[in-house]
Amino acid sequence: MTNKGLIQNFFEDFEVGRKLTCPTPRVLTDADRVAYISFTGDRTPLYCSSAGSVHPLIVFHTVLGQTVRQISLNAVANLGYAEMVWHRPVRVGDEIHTTIEIIGLKENSNRQSGIVYARTTGSNQHGEPVLSYCRWVMVRKNREAETSYLRDPVVPTVAPLVPTGHLAGTPPNHFSPRDTGGNFFLEDYSVGERIYHSDGQTINSSDHMSFTRLYQNSARVHFDAITTGGKPLVYGGLIISLGYAQAFSGFENRLGIKAINAGTHANPAYAGDTAYCFTEVLDRVSLSDLHGALRLRMFVVKNHQPDESFSPMNDSTSSNTQRYHPAVVLDLDYWELMATRRSDAGRR
Amino acid sequence: MTNKGLIQNFFEDFEVGRKLTCPTPRVLTDADRVAYISFTGDRTPLYCSSAGSVHPLIVFHTVLGQTVRQISLNAVANLGYAEMVWHRPVRVGDEIHTTIEIIGLKENSNRQSGIVYARTTGSNQHGEPVLSYCRWVMVRKNREAETSYLRDPVVPTVAPLVPTGHLAGTPPNHFSPRDTGGNFFLEDYSVGERIYHSDGQTINSSDHMSFTRLYQNSARVHFDAITTGGKPLVYGGLIISLGYAQAFSGFENRLGIKAINAGTHANPAYAGDTAYCFTEVLDRVSLSDLHGALRLRMFVVKNHQPDESFSPMNDSTSSNTQRYHPAVVLDLDYWELMATRRSDAGRR
Amino acid sequence: MTNKGLIQNFFEDFEVGRKLTCPTPRVLTDADRVAYISFTGDRTPLYCSSAGSVHPLIVFHTVLGQTVRQISLNAVANLGYAEMVWHRPVRVGDEIHTTIEIIGLKENSNRQSGIVYARTTGSNQHGEPVLSYCRWVMVRKNREAETSYLRDPVVPTVAPLVPTGHLAGTPPNHFSPRDTGGNFFLEDYSVGERIYHSDGQTINSSDHMSFTRLYQNSARVHFDAITTGGKPLVYGGLIISLGYAQAFSGFENRLGIKAINAGTHANPAYAGDTAYCFTEVLDRVSLSDLHGALRLRMFVVKNHQPDESFSPMNDSTSSNTQRYHPAVVLDLDYWELMATRRSDAGRR
Repeated sequence: MTNKGLIQNFFEDFEVGRKLTCPTPRVLTDADRVAYISFTGDRTPLYCSSAGSVHPLIVFHTVLGQTVRQISLNAVANLGYAEMVWHRPVRVGDEIHTTIEIIGLKENSNRQSGIVYARTTGSNQHGEPVLSYCRWVMVRKNREAETSYLRDPVVPTVAPLVPTGHLAGTPPNHFSPRDTGGNFFLEDYSVGERIYHSDGQTINSSDHMSFTRLYQNSARVHFDAITTGGKPLVYGGLIISLGYAQAFSGFENRLGIKAINAGTHANPAYAGDTAYCFTEVLDRVSLSDLHGALRLRMFVVKNHQPDESFSPMNDSTSSNTQRYHPAVVLDLDYWELMATRRSDAGRR
Repeated sequence: MTNKGLIQNFFEDFEVGRKLTCPTPRVLTDADRVAYISFTGDRTPLYCSSAGSVHPLIVFHTVLGQTVRQISLNAVANLGYAEMVWHRPVRVGDEIHTTIEIIGLKENSNRQSGIVYARTTGSNQHGEPVLSYCRWVMVRKNREAETSYLRDPVVPTVAPLVPTGHLAGTPPNHFSPRDTGGNFFLEDYSVGERIYHSDGQTINSSDHMSFTRLYQNSARVHFDAITTGGKPLVYGGLIISLGYAQAFSGFENRLGIKAINAGTHANPAYAGDTAYCFTEVLDRVSLSDLHGALRLRMFVVKNHQPDESFSPMNDSTSSNTQRYHPAVVLDLDYWELMATRRSDAGRR
Repeated sequence: MTNKGLIQNFFEDFEVGRKLTCPTPRVLTDADRVAYISFTGDRTPLYCSSAGSVHPLIVFHTVLGQTVRQISLNAVANLGYAEMVWHRPVRVGDEIHTTIEIIGLKENSNRQSGIVYARTTGSNQHGEPVLSYCRWVMVRKNREAETSYLRDPVVPTVAPLVPTGHLAGTPPNHFSPRDTGGNFFLEDYSVGERIYHSDGQTINSSDHMSFTRLYQNSARVHFDAITTGGKPLVYGGLIISLGYAQAFSGFENRLGIKAINAGTHANPAYAGDTAYCFTEVLDRVSLSDLHGALRLRMFVVKNHQPDESFSPMNDSTSSNTQRYHPAVVLDLDYWELMATRRSDAGRR
């Protein structure tokens, strides 16, 4: 008799073009806003004042958590993200539903696993998309027989950059520097500038597991100290949120993350690691009199406080293929909306 | 002068027939739903979507926490539950009040302690019962003098099984398999079948203490590492909730726990233990075209992933009187409402 | 180029009379009430029933957290509080804003740091003050040059006691002893009486960091295990809340903390410490037929369960200047409103 408790997808269970609906619908509430603050310390006014909405990263974690049952219970590694766009704000009381389309499959030559490329869309209770992204993960095979995707892999092309057209639309309310605590606006950032956010956070066992459960992400590797040899893996999404929360110091007048161009979990993190964060400004574009966008590259680094001498890439001693420094746990290339100095002048 | 900070009941303070009102009234909110998800990872749609109500186990923890001040501050051991029935749903905003009636007392022959049998009723703000159960706990004596319950114990009879009549009534809304992620219905379960829920959870110090405080359960043995020799006891209710959350994998179309026939905390659990869970199907009854009930026996096992070779009972090396395998921490016999395949067909 | 991520105030950046607005506005919700219960176990009915308001200590933590960015990112030590008064209740949905006035500055003779005296006011969304207090903290200097406050320090006078006039006004609703679980009223407490609250709480890493992040207190010393040599400091506010929650046992008919006369964090606490608490009754005043105030001195003691032989002060082996016993972590002198026996009699 089949064990009903272990129904799951392996690599050979996917086919290109297949669409999947993800359990479980989840309503987001004030309590999700408060829990997020308690786990991350994020101080962006838009997400903790009465005027604000649900943090875009709460939406991301909710959607990603919903996909785990279908996609990543048997994931070996979470390889990357691209083309991630938040389409519209989520308000308290909205209910999130998620669907997936398989857009690529590539079996590995060792026949033990393969890469699943999935386009994911989270929608609200009105069926309007709130977030979409591509993600690729390495998933184990269950049976030895090779699939057609060993000889005929389907590898989708993903855009290296979310076009600025996706960033347009009405900007969110901006809070005054009295409420944000920061005096830098879009115009003040220079391409090539580095910003060090000096708020190191040590990750505790309970924090990372509770955060991951909050989003109903049930991937086993995060929770079981026995099967992981005493080292449950920290959910990569928590690293994104800790970095983004730290990045409030230096981007106090930010209006919210709007798109992720590329994201890589460069090395694993475990309980006891301390996360530091710095950001490089890659680009700056104007979108209106009131706001523009910064293309930012955020690095989260563990157990090493980065300074100007720190080089995150091209480490010859590194074993990972992209030659990240072994202390780098996250490399995230994203578009952040920013208020202009003019928008603030207009307010006074 | 009496220390006002240490007013409490010992075994000799109870008498059969006495009724007690329990502090503190507690309103249940969206935040209780979210906190419960974060502590347990439960994914049952009824309790995390906008359509749903408050998880029956939240109600149980709230009621049990309210009884601690009167009953179990001086408990030596929590011996068992029976005749537990959830009478009506609890909605966000409902306020829970709890009363107790002492229905039995039996002093132990060593005169150091005795067993208190209590019938507990939790009600909502309208005075309508939402949960009732019998529980028996071993409570310390404070004075040496023997009580009349040494020679004339009063031991109530508890029913071994909640009759199916208590399970009737309008079933809760059922979510479609697209929203639950599972394709098994009432008809698919066989008496004698075992289901292994493969989501091991390592329990952290902070998790179990915060969960227990959340329900205002102030029994000291859960919180003080000094007086417990470095091993604060995990509140048994958390074990019930972790097991029930894991059991979503395999019972995705469940409509909610409706009654507990018998429950035993077979062995203690401590921070660092990893909880696994499996379920045996004891009975299956039809209640309407739309739903029925499964009588399930859920075992939570620590630090050992159970499989078909695992025998939870009749362990000759075990020191506990019921001869549980030393890894068994919970043996719970309960009624779970389940949707029928017909109910799902009717939806399409 | 200045690192935009590290904009902060040092001692020399303050001047007497300067007013500062604090980021970030924060709305308080049901979720803040629930999170507070989960972190502290507080069982005061006013703050967990449907009739109640937001716990005064939630308001305190929110306001103090808002001041960190301006005042205490570079604090060496948090020296004390005085003249703290809660002016009006905070309800679910209220949004808190905080301002500071610098009322004193005193550079230390070593020129490495100085004491900043700040009057802090937290207000609701209508601009009405909800909490105000004086606090003094030792803050590092960044530049060597001496300030005028080395030779001409400005040291404000703070009242040793909040006058009982500040305690007047409509008392909060009182719950009956059936709902509080306690039978002692204002008239039952004697000046000089000691009350031992016997609910030891071991503090976990995750608890204290999550609690501190919840209130968006970003002082680095609480979060970074590397820069603190493995011992992140427990936020002193958590100690206040743990002590106050324990003090429910013995003051069950309390109506809420109304003012703090003086507060000292006598010794640091770290994860793994177990907090015990006892209270001395310093004064008792009648305010109306329905209620009065107790002046209480609460001591929180770590890793040592205090009894009548414990002397918190005048320890000759102690290295701290006020000669606190090394186990004392908090000395808090406050006014607690209490129901009278008459108010309860009137209810029946």
